[in-house]
Amino acid sequence: MKAQGEVYLVGAGPGAADLITLRGLRLLQRADVVLHDRLISSDLLSEVRTGAEIIDVGKTPGRAGAAQEQVNALLVAKAKTGAVVVRLKGGDPGVFGRAAEEMAACRAAGIPCRVVPGVSSALAAPAALGISLTVRGMAQSVAICTARSAAGSVLNEAAIRAAAAADTVVVLMGGAAVSEVMAALRGAGRSGDTPAACIASATLPQERTVVATVDSLAQAAADAALAAPMVIVVGKAIDAAAQDLGMDMSGNRVETLPP
Amino acid sequence: MKAQGEVYLVGAGPGAADLITLRGLRLLQRADVVLHDRLISSDLLSEVRTGAEIIDVGKTPGRAGAAQEQVNALLVAKAKTGAVVVRLKGGDPGVFGRAAEEMAACRAAGIPCRVVPGVSSALAAPAALGISLTVRGMAQSVAICTARSAAGSVLNEAAIRAAAAADTVVVLMGGAAVSEVMAALRGAGRSGDTPAACIASATLPQERTVVATVDSLAQAAADAALAAPMVIVVGKAIDAAAQDLGMDMSGNRVETLPP
Repeated sequence: MKAQGEVYLVGAGPGAADLITLRGLRLLQRADVVLHDRLISSDLLSEVRTGAEIIDVGKTPGRAGAAQEQVNALLVAKAKTGAVVVRLKGGDPGVFGRAAEEMAACRAAGIPCRVVPGVSSALAAPAALGISLTVRGMAQSVAICTARSAAGSVLNEAAIRAAAAADTVVVLMGGAAVSEVMAALRGAGRSGDTPAACIASATLPQERTVVATVDSLAQAAADAALAAPMVIVVGKAIDAAAQDLGMDMSGNRVETLPP
Repeated sequence: MKAQGEVYLVGAGPGAADLITLRGLRLLQRADVVLHDRLISSDLLSEVRTGAEIIDVGKTPGRAGAAQEQVNALLVAKAKTGAVVVRLKGGDPGVFGRAAEEMAACRAAGIPCRVVPGVSSALAAPAALGISLTVRGMAQSVAICTARSAAGSVLNEAAIRAAAAADTVVVLMGGAAVSEVMAALRGAGRSGDTPAACIASATLPQERTVVATVDSLAQAAADAALAAPMVIVVGKAIDAAAQDLGMDMSGNRVETLPP
């Protein structure tokens, strides 16, 4: 009888290949099968050993990717052949990574499944710009949500309103909805002059950023032609960095430091 | 004239040495001076090259550590000698890591300072237990706060109430205040039967966990003699994992999988 396989849900980190964890890298190098999201660095995939199977299960905007049920079934089927299966996910598997569904599918099939956490882009994108999400005496809570609901097409208004209560708000996958997200934050009581930033392609060579306010961010991001993947950050914590960086809160594009 | 030094604020991750990023590890191996928090793995510190200076600037509960101003001054002074200085912090520097203050001190002194993000224990501790912080259709926002205010001794009630609005709430540094944190969450409208978990020493061999409810967590954590460092997680997202893990929400101690 063939040995039982196993599944690892591994966080690849925010983009740059060297922001994966050491544990994640070692598993990637050991894997027999790698199922990866879209937007995983080719440098990371080149760490997969020769002979291992690499399957892209990512969704391209406007084009259907593998349905979640298909990914779940594939994880189980590959592990049942005895393979070490790495499910490589952008960011951290536990933050909008559908880890719960994949873990449940593995458990239901009796396949061992472990999570290897990763650096979430919710945390790394602000860091790339020198923004600390918390600032002593100024920003003492952080909330993370996505711009769109699970269904994908509708603004995630309830989640944005819930997140708006925190001092610092991070909105993931907000690329095509900056204006609606800012409106929802204003509706939840955040002032229009609250500092707000968009970070596109965080930690990658093509990283681009604008810093503005809740009222002016959507226009500033459009003027700068920022594109997905994009992380939006809102809150006074930005001020602590922005003042040091010499930004004027009027939507200036900021050239970030080389890595 | 001696070359200008530089400072890197590096996230060491949640505890296990192999949960640092590859970039962080490489900088640690290159550093001339390492200033580290308490609770950094000795395996990680053993990666520092022979001849480099290692300085523990951590605070031990009940004993004064280096004041933040002293740490800032030390970072600047060491970098001014031309050294590559790594400030190694538990978790992620941007999440309750005082990164803003250290970056500001470096910038004021003209010292280049960059942040290398890390895996926050806020994300890694739940993952160690198989809990995904978000669950599609069930938990669509996550908030992170600390149990104590910046001053250290007072319950951080405003931050806990702000975080309570999110579907999943993560409270860091809550070891000695589980009961007060739960009371604050109830005061903010969270139901007493909401699932709640404590994860102590997450990702380390001595990791210990209890899963209970908002009403029963403090007693369960005390019964199990859980000690700091501790991460508290509250929300229905726990249910998705707990059911799979066969937990009964009555404060069972959970044996976690070996790493």
